[in-house]
Amino acid sequence: MFQAAELGRQLSKADFEAELPSLRAQLLQGQIALMQDPQQAVLVVIEGLDGSGRADLLNHLYAWLDPRGLKTHTFWDPSDEEQERPFFWRFWRSLPQKGSIAIHLGGWYRDLLTDAIHGSLDDARLDLALAKRRNLEQMLALEGVIILKFWLYLPEAVQRERLSQEADSPDDRWGNLAAKNALKSRHRFLHIAEHVMRLTDSAVAPWYLIEATDANYRDMTVGKTMADALLNAQQRHQHWRLSAQSELTNLGSVPSLPNASSAQVSVLDRVDLTVKMSKSDYKKAYETVRHELSSLAWQAWRAKKTTVIVFEGWDASGKGGAIRRLASALDARLYRAVSFGAPTEQELGFPFLWRFWHELPRAGRVMMFDRSWYGRVLVERVEGFAEASVWSRAYHEINNFESELIESGVVLIKFWLHISPDMQLERFKDRESTPYKQHKITDEDWRNREKWSAYEQAVNDMLFRTGTEIAPWTLVSAENKYVARIEVISKVVEQLKQALK
Amino acid sequence: MFQAAELGRQLSKADFEAELPSLRAQLLQGQIALMQDPQQAVLVVIEGLDGSGRADLLNHLYAWLDPRGLKTHTFWDPSDEEQERPFFWRFWRSLPQKGSIAIHLGGWYRDLLTDAIHGSLDDARLDLALAKRRNLEQMLALEGVIILKFWLYLPEAVQRERLSQEADSPDDRWGNLAAKNALKSRHRFLHIAEHVMRLTDSAVAPWYLIEATDANYRDMTVGKTMADALLNAQQRHQHWRLSAQSELTNLGSVPSLPNASSAQVSVLDRVDLTVKMSKSDYKKAYETVRHELSSLAWQAWRAKKTTVIVFEGWDASGKGGAIRRLASALDARLYRAVSFGAPTEQELGFPFLWRFWHELPRAGRVMMFDRSWYGRVLVERVEGFAEASVWSRAYHEINNFESELIESGVVLIKFWLHISPDMQLERFKDRESTPYKQHKITDEDWRNREKWSAYEQAVNDMLFRTGTEIAPWTLVSAENKYVARIEVISKVVEQLKQALK
Repeated sequence: MFQAAELGRQLSKADFEAELPSLRAQLLQGQIALMQDPQQAVLVVIEGLDGSGRADLLNHLYAWLDPRGLKTHTFWDPSDEEQERPFFWRFWRSLPQKGSIAIHLGGWYRDLLTDAIHGSLDDARLDLALAKRRNLEQMLALEGVIILKFWLYLPEAVQRERLSQEADSPDDRWGNLAAKNALKSRHRFLHIAEHVMRLTDSAVAPWYLIEATDANYRDMTVGKTMADALLNAQQRHQHWRLSAQSELTNLGSVPSLPNASSAQVSVLDRVDLTVKMSKSDYKKAYETVRHELSSLAWQAWRAKKTTVIVFEGWDASGKGGAIRRLASALDARLYRAVSFGAPTEQELGFPFLWRFWHELPRAGRVMMFDRSWYGRVLVERVEGFAEASVWSRAYHEINNFESELIESGVVLIKFWLHISPDMQLERFKDRESTPYKQHKITDEDWRNREKWSAYEQAVNDMLFRTGTEIAPWTLVSAENKYVARIEVISKVVEQLKQALK
Repeated sequence: MFQAAELGRQLSKADFEAELPSLRAQLLQGQIALMQDPQQAVLVVIEGLDGSGRADLLNHLYAWLDPRGLKTHTFWDPSDEEQERPFFWRFWRSLPQKGSIAIHLGGWYRDLLTDAIHGSLDDARLDLALAKRRNLEQMLALEGVIILKFWLYLPEAVQRERLSQEADSPDDRWGNLAAKNALKSRHRFLHIAEHVMRLTDSAVAPWYLIEATDANYRDMTVGKTMADALLNAQQRHQHWRLSAQSELTNLGSVPSLPNASSAQVSVLDRVDLTVKMSKSDYKKAYETVRHELSSLAWQAWRAKKTTVIVFEGWDASGKGGAIRRLASALDARLYRAVSFGAPTEQELGFPFLWRFWHELPRAGRVMMFDRSWYGRVLVERVEGFAEASVWSRAYHEINNFESELIESGVVLIKFWLHISPDMQLERFKDRESTPYKQHKITDEDWRNREKWSAYEQAVNDMLFRTGTEIAPWTLVSAENKYVARIEVISKVVEQLKQALK
């Protein structure tokens, strides 16, 4: 593979200067188009050999592009903030917003390469990690991120010379030793890099191998590739809007199982809605679980065990009340609760999971999501805000996201608060007639109610496709608020106990 | 997840009989539409618990559908034929042709489940194997295969009862012991099955969990799901043809690297075309390598080492001649050579790699491909026979295919025979004026020649994107036929020697 970058390609200073004006015009034109109609984002990944001039290239790109639409991210040693969250968190916080360009130096490949070279990653684990990155890139692409990955290469003699020069320079960050190590591991590094590129080269996130011996050639080639991508982006997006059905849509959404007519029964129907609890029993039970929870939360904090709790459920099923009771058992320094409605304009500028990644807490904290990433397969599906191809692939994307959380040690608890349509009606009416509850009821609630059976289908599909062995759903009988609240807190207590064992 | 299949759903005999006529009509209507306009194929995978009635379901499907368009494949112990080829070969030979339906009992999940239960597959390897299957299913879907995966579930008590009944039956294939084992490993099996479904549930190949306690409900639900898919298939395909640009197309094809204008040099340009060899030197060299090769081929046969040799190159670059010289060193029982032109109608009925899988030899043989799977990224790309989205994803598909070959122990050697445009012209003219060579030259050759630079770009992209660390390309200087032939045979000798060490 690397023979393609040992050709001695170069560009004379005169040729470089001659081509530069047109390159700069194209890059700016593309960037301005991107900014004026922010439908896509651009993610540029720069990888390669030490000494290949990644920083020089970067400086050129900054000189050529409008730096206001450009952010660069290096991924040196992770900060405290980053270490306390799932591995990919630092990359999600570094994603470009639509209309802008992000440059990742190394990005999600660098650690893998290092680990693989030092042998701390066996073949299967490396390949699995690569498959995850491939998946991630495909998902980002489908969510509107244009991905360009450059790999800067130098022949051995050139790298040797470059590194010795760098080691002599007074502002060298790496020093002589690092240079020697880079040369010593060069062969192994290249072998693994070739493997990495093979498994992560894809139509939506291709690798570009750049011969980096001549800086003029290197920077001009990268610049032109970016200019092409920027100029194509707009055109591509128009096609996208025009084509009524996309390839993935054509391939089909995930259909629900047809129910044999006389067998219309679902998991939801099996939730026992007749369970009752008196106010006094509730108060007693609440005092007990509340103290238990309070103590467990502090233990979890000391053990750096993060808890993420998802609340989904029908309108007026009591999500807010359950969250308030749960929260009141916790020290305010330990928890946060966030409510998710329709995404803001800023949030729409990122892949849909971004706003949830964004809210992930530091280690040892409890995070409560009042509605969550499941919006995509519930309200967005039912109301048609997301195309079938989009919500269909979301099940898998959600499962992968939750898998990242769990692998990083997060305790994930998911509740569906279930009530009957009659109970919902009763509570809606109560809300309308109670002054301090009127803000809770809107026309939209009544409209949603009319689509009960469409939502029911969506909920059932969600429960099946995301009720996984690592992140099962807890169905809560919420017809009686006391029952629901105690069940919710007890479940959290139970899960925390288990996690802290 | 499995709670969704413990609901006691059932269908009375009367209801079943009442719904049956309409189901049968729909199934047949869908199947006939599929057969009359064979643009898609249907792959049905049936998995599930022992005792869940997979065979009974199958018999119902046979009664309802036209069995002429239906093939069932069980994957019991692999045959000799199958064991001597890469793992997925048995599945490729069992794929449905467009217009038809294939049913896989277990399919590519069964072995994995078994291995995982017996602990012979650690977590990372299991997940990697699942990622491969997910990839494979996505590729098949993009190539026109509609995939439906059913998972038949029984509650524990029901399974226990069923298996004890089966064990008592005189024609029971499995016997009492197997039934006991199935129950003993039930919990572990379900845990792994849930994991498998989570990682391989996708929009293009979703899993359907079927409650199989009641046979009427089970068969009616599977039947209806199939009928829906069949009836949708046609409509979906029309959308496909209509939408000028598909989602993956919109996401972009893999662009070539732009060349800085004064740096137009490629890997191909670096092939030294000035090397010469006299006829007498050639004859001498040929005798030597020929005997070496002959002996190595027999050693490889005894060692069951399979060799696959790919010949690609310009028209008139001497592929045929090189193959003939290579072949004449081999015992005719040990090798085959196949030439690939435009796909036949039958071949077009399958995913594009099918015809190459189809030709994979038994263990220890040598297979020569005169043109190959690279047609997709060469002629199909340049001539526009494949859309950009299609040839762009082919690089990765090809790399995966070759990786399967190599993992199974195949020695894979890939040649690109390179000549100059002048030499091609000379040989074309010679072909025209030599009577016994005239069949080798057609108008198409002249037309292709006009597209030299487009082909050159495609070749360069191919060399980079598929010249991997496990399957590098050998660029052969073919301006002089003697040089080329000796280089080809010597390379094969060298690779075989290394493989047999």
